[in-house]
Amino acid sequence: MSNGHIFIGEVIGTAILILFGAGVCAAVTLRHSKARSAGWGVIAFGWGFGVLAGAYTAAPLSGGQLNPAVTLGIAVDTGKWGKVWVYLLGQIVGAMIGAVLAYLVYLAQFQANVREEDTGEEPVSTLGIFSTIPEIRHPVANLITEIIATMALVLPVLAFGLTKGLGESGTTVLIVSLLVVGIGLSLGGPTGYAINPARDLGPRIVHTFLPIPNKGTSDWGYAWIPIVGPLIGGTLAGLLYHAAF
Amino acid sequence: MSNGHIFIGEVIGTAILILFGAGVCAAVTLRHSKARSAGWGVIAFGWGFGVLAGAYTAAPLSGGQLNPAVTLGIAVDTGKWGKVWVYLLGQIVGAMIGAVLAYLVYLAQFQANVREEDTGEEPVSTLGIFSTIPEIRHPVANLITEIIATMALVLPVLAFGLTKGLGESGTTVLIVSLLVVGIGLSLGGPTGYAINPARDLGPRIVHTFLPIPNKGTSDWGYAWIPIVGPLIGGTLAGLLYHAAF
Amino acid sequence: MSNGHIFIGEVIGTAILILFGAGVCAAVTLRHSKARSAGWGVIAFGWGFGVLAGAYTAAPLSGGQLNPAVTLGIAVDTGKWGKVWVYLLGQIVGAMIGAVLAYLVYLAQFQANVREEDTGEEPVSTLGIFSTIPEIRHPVANLITEIIATMALVLPVLAFGLTKGLGESGTTVLIVSLLVVGIGLSLGGPTGYAINPARDLGPRIVHTFLPIPNKGTSDWGYAWIPIVGPLIGGTLAGLLYHAAF
Amino acid sequence: MSNGHIFIGEVIGTAILILFGAGVCAAVTLRHSKARSAGWGVIAFGWGFGVLAGAYTAAPLSGGQLNPAVTLGIAVDTGKWGKVWVYLLGQIVGAMIGAVLAYLVYLAQFQANVREEDTGEEPVSTLGIFSTIPEIRHPVANLITEIIATMALVLPVLAFGLTKGLGESGTTVLIVSLLVVGIGLSLGGPTGYAINPARDLGPRIVHTFLPIPNKGTSDWGYAWIPIVGPLIGGTLAGLLYHAAF
Repeated sequence: MSNGHIFIGEVIGTAILILFGAGVCAAVTLRHSKARSAGWGVIAFGWGFGVLAGAYTAAPLSGGQLNPAVTLGIAVDTGKWGKVWVYLLGQIVGAMIGAVLAYLVYLAQFQANVREEDTGEEPVSTLGIFSTIPEIRHPVANLITEIIATMALVLPVLAFGLTKGLGESGTTVLIVSLLVVGIGLSLGGPTGYAINPARDLGPRIVHTFLPIPNKGTSDWGYAWIPIVGPLIGGTLAGLLYHAAF
Repeated sequence: MSNGHIFIGEVIGTAILILFGAGVCAAVTLRHSKARSAGWGVIAFGWGFGVLAGAYTAAPLSGGQLNPAVTLGIAVDTGKWGKVWVYLLGQIVGAMIGAVLAYLVYLAQFQANVREEDTGEEPVSTLGIFSTIPEIRHPVANLITEIIATMALVLPVLAFGLTKGLGESGTTVLIVSLLVVGIGLSLGGPTGYAINPARDLGPRIVHTFLPIPNKGTSDWGYAWIPIVGPLIGGTLAGLLYHAAF
Repeated sequence: MSNGHIFIGEVIGTAILILFGAGVCAAVTLRHSKARSAGWGVIAFGWGFGVLAGAYTAAPLSGGQLNPAVTLGIAVDTGKWGKVWVYLLGQIVGAMIGAVLAYLVYLAQFQANVREEDTGEEPVSTLGIFSTIPEIRHPVANLITEIIATMALVLPVLAFGLTKGLGESGTTVLIVSLLVVGIGLSLGGPTGYAINPARDLGPRIVHTFLPIPNKGTSDWGYAWIPIVGPLIGGTLAGLLYHAAF
Repeated sequence: MSNGHIFIGEVIGTAILILFGAGVCAAVTLRHSKARSAGWGVIAFGWGFGVLAGAYTAAPLSGGQLNPAVTLGIAVDTGKWGKVWVYLLGQIVGAMIGAVLAYLVYLAQFQANVREEDTGEEPVSTLGIFSTIPEIRHPVANLITEIIATMALVLPVLAFGLTKGLGESGTTVLIVSLLVVGIGLSLGGPTGYAINPARDLGPRIVHTFLPIPNKGTSDWGYAWIPIVGPLIGGTLAGLLYHAAF
């Protein structure tokens, strides 16, 4: 695969992933959304099917990694580092584009994020639509959560033979997407499961600049954890896979 | 495939799709339904499995496109326009038949859509069972939502190789149906995700003529958005796919 | 396949189907169940995965039809009627065994179906765990609902090539099970979707004889509808499939 | 497969299974979790996708049995008992590791399991995150529930051809994982569906020793039922499969 194909594939695939993921968070968070308060299961399935849509679309171009932690795990396992920077660049750019698209889908809802005149209901905090926020702010525990949750993604992905090319089997993409649903359901409770540095960083940059009424803080003080945690987790998964399999 | 096979396939497949889709909206909306208020997740899965049932049934006859936006995206990508009108005709006719079938399944519930004598509960608005209604009426934002959500359907469908014939692989149909579940969960909040002009127009025509007590408006002032938006989205997806892949 | 294999396969498969189906209804209905009031989505997925478990288990023995309406639809389409009675006999016997198994799984919960001493809560009605009950008692409308819902099962099943043997492809069984989830979500609201005469009749017989405290009526006056409706629906689906495909 | 590969495979696979399963129970139980009170459907899907992740990861090393009841059922059917002890040892060790990992993911939540200063809310009971607790304590009924539920797992798994090696088909692993979702939805109400002695015993040992505030009893008086019941169920399923298929 040429650098151009990899870049375009990762941009499109990660944009679709974040469009679905930020979209479902907007759907359950914002007022005047039909899915408001639809619950944690809806969030987990929305993100998982975002993986399905993004990875399958990107597969013929780049293999559909869409996640620096996956890219890092594959590189640690295979020892091939030459194209890692192309993947990472595409993933960050794609994540930013996806966040903007999700914002556009919910444009009227974001514009209506003001105090309700009739009920007096206050605006909602919007950062959680774009990036992860821990329920309990505890850097060591939050890091551990992200490390283990990312290992629970990358180790199975490596074992599924993703390194041989995601496009070979539709069933593999489907299984990975349900794996991501499972991670959300089971391991997302404490930090909102970034498990993907691009998924958290790209939308946080976008959140910083978007003109959303009452958008609240972009919380850059926390931003390093959903980057460092998944990168450690991906590396550990690559090492463990290389040793055990 | 002959024009007759295409027409019959699209009629049957789209009728099944709308039977399930309008059916699940009736199930969660109408009184005296076991699924009343079952939530947004149920709606999204109901529509998605309607795609599964309809597309798989129609596949050996017509390929199972069931959606003018998909048909348009394929035509833009492939440059083959000769049979587009057969697909569109079958989709509209099928959508109308499906809406009537859903009405018949919930016949007793529709007939009971009157003021409850014992509780004083008022009749429910029935248009949302048939066609889409935006949460915030804002033509530009609603159009953008439908355009992006339709692109999120058609671009992956093209990448999944649907243009080569849907009947080749059961896994592909399954993945497309879960993709539609994901679009519902993630992108359906603002407008109810038409993403298919036939899905909105056919049932709206049927709603206009059906003898439902207290059925409320058929809201033809909004009807152009779920037609124009998906057609723009399908075209853009076809162009993007043709350029990038 | 020999008559013995068919009979054993249908008995085991239908018993598993009803164990899961009656089980999930017990799970959400009975007090002292962890799944109490878990909602309509849980019921629809429970029944669907019961199809998955039962049909896949029975496939190597009998093809896993598990439903007189499916058997009838296949016979109408293929014109082969010689073994229909073996299938039907196995399905009825299996459904009765499955209902007894579900009763045994929830034995302590059924025995505790008495007035709560501390809260004064009354016993629940138990028939809905075993057989279907319409929300609005209206024989014509209830029949129409069961006919259309059964056609929405049998027509796709025929199109999926089930007549060629269910065991050939795991994906086909998976798709049929998700189709049944979809029918539950979308078309189950009015009558509880029997769509299978054995599914309703077998457990109703068992309910009549089981020693459940405060079990309430077995409602034999309604019992003909979930038998006649699905048989008509299966026949119509077989005729339509034979004509259109 | 060598003893070493089997042991490592079962340790890794069962650890992943319990990480997801105990994880989802923590997610819906503990305060300060985004998934708190997300409902029984979330629990059932979390456990099912844990099977997906664990079995698929372990498949190339050990076949991914992850459950003494499955191992016993296969041995009863095939008559090969030589490596059973390696599987069992790996499963117990893996289950303990998985429980510790789930504890680490929810470390901050477990540490915060104290009386809330502001609301006065009491600590939650933590055993249910690790091991099963019956809703009604009735040894005979609880045993029957576990026996039948385990048969509903092992008989289909044997019929799915798992004995020939789980790694052959991704679809098979997917179907087994959805089967486990179905067992949870349908048969989990009375006892919380151990259906796997390692799944209950390993985490119970870990619960006994972990330093969790207000963790409550480890309830060793009940511990024999989720061991004996599944072992009986697995044996009966193996005998039935051997006789019927």
